[in-house]
Amino acid sequence: MIKRDIPDIIVSRLPVYLRALRHMQTQNLQTTSSQELGKQVGISAAQIRKDLSQFGEFGKQGTGYNIAFLVSKLREILQVEKVWDVALVGMGDMGHALARYPGFTDRGFRITMFFDNDQSKIGTKVGEFKVQDTRGLVGAIHAAGIKLAMVCVPAEAAQEVTNQLVEAGVRSILNYAPISLSVPEGVRVQYLDPSVGLQRMTYYLDQNK
Amino acid sequence: MIKRDIPDIIVSRLPVYLRALRHMQTQNLQTTSSQELGKQVGISAAQIRKDLSQFGEFGKQGTGYNIAFLVSKLREILQVEKVWDVALVGMGDMGHALARYPGFTDRGFRITMFFDNDQSKIGTKVGEFKVQDTRGLVGAIHAAGIKLAMVCVPAEAAQEVTNQLVEAGVRSILNYAPISLSVPEGVRVQYLDPSVGLQRMTYYLDQNK
Repeated sequence: MIKRDIPDIIVSRLPVYLRALRHMQTQNLQTTSSQELGKQVGISAAQIRKDLSQFGEFGKQGTGYNIAFLVSKLREILQVEKVWDVALVGMGDMGHALARYPGFTDRGFRITMFFDNDQSKIGTKVGEFKVQDTRGLVGAIHAAGIKLAMVCVPAEAAQEVTNQLVEAGVRSILNYAPISLSVPEGVRVQYLDPSVGLQRMTYYLDQNK
Repeated sequence: MIKRDIPDIIVSRLPVYLRALRHMQTQNLQTTSSQELGKQVGISAAQIRKDLSQFGEFGKQGTGYNIAFLVSKLREILQVEKVWDVALVGMGDMGHALARYPGFTDRGFRITMFFDNDQSKIGTKVGEFKVQDTRGLVGAIHAAGIKLAMVCVPAEAAQEVTNQLVEAGVRSILNYAPISLSVPEGVRVQYLDPSVGLQRMTYYLDQNK
């Protein structure tokens, strides 16, 4: 597939469409419309048609989108038709919750390396994998060629861990530490910060009700 | 403050600016520019100036933004200068991780109600609060007037719990269950789905490297 220069904001919406479409699949639906999809995800039908048209002709006037076809196209565009190995650093509460999170299956990801600097955690098992010492992080991730990582360490350790991940060759970081991370150009960070999630909604709340 | 009709996409960026500005405050910075802020958050300086101009005149040509002033303005706009009570449903791994998440403090939120349907969890303590039976959820949340909730239950229970939250008067839901939720008009859902976070970055990864 030839990649054009798609605006980040559109790319960021595609996984949301993909999730909604897969949800429709679990309900045994075969086709959908931009209206229906828009209702599911809270984005206007016009915006959805515009977003998807960036990547080619997906829908047919009057008959809507074939869900299975659109799912497979979106997975291809997002490069999640393969399974990416992911490293996870920090086996505290959040790290454990992510290790057991059922939503990675069949969505393109598998956590295959776990790290912590706590001697009591190193060597313990997470499923079929052993928690490794963070001191060996750079070598282990580099050797495995892993490009994706999740940072679940405390705020004060997050930048140092991030520097090591970048050194190891990681290019995409999901950050759970409640701080902003500095990364060099070419490395992406996504923040899954619950406070930000909540703050995005309080704007709309009427304080007087 | 009189509210104008600000596009959702702009509102969704404000908490990200706020987090970066607070990070600057921890580094004892007094002023910043749209360029500097843009670098921190990965958004263009022009976009930042445009976003902030929706709410009034924050910066001065040549001298940039006063960080403390901008932080206080953004907190006011987002309505997080007060502390919102939040209910959390589902005391599994993710629920526990959120209960101990240090990033709510001083950012406008405090989890004050915890629910689970597991008899072995009901009555146990989370800090100063007791885990309550989900069967009493509607009454308890309604009585407390709580408008915000986090859903951390398994996928198969998430829609039912959401229906109860809506019935109880909740208007903003942070969803950690790996499914899309249906809510009536006027209720907002934010998804903090790690798969979506990762999928937003795999698009940019070169598979051949």
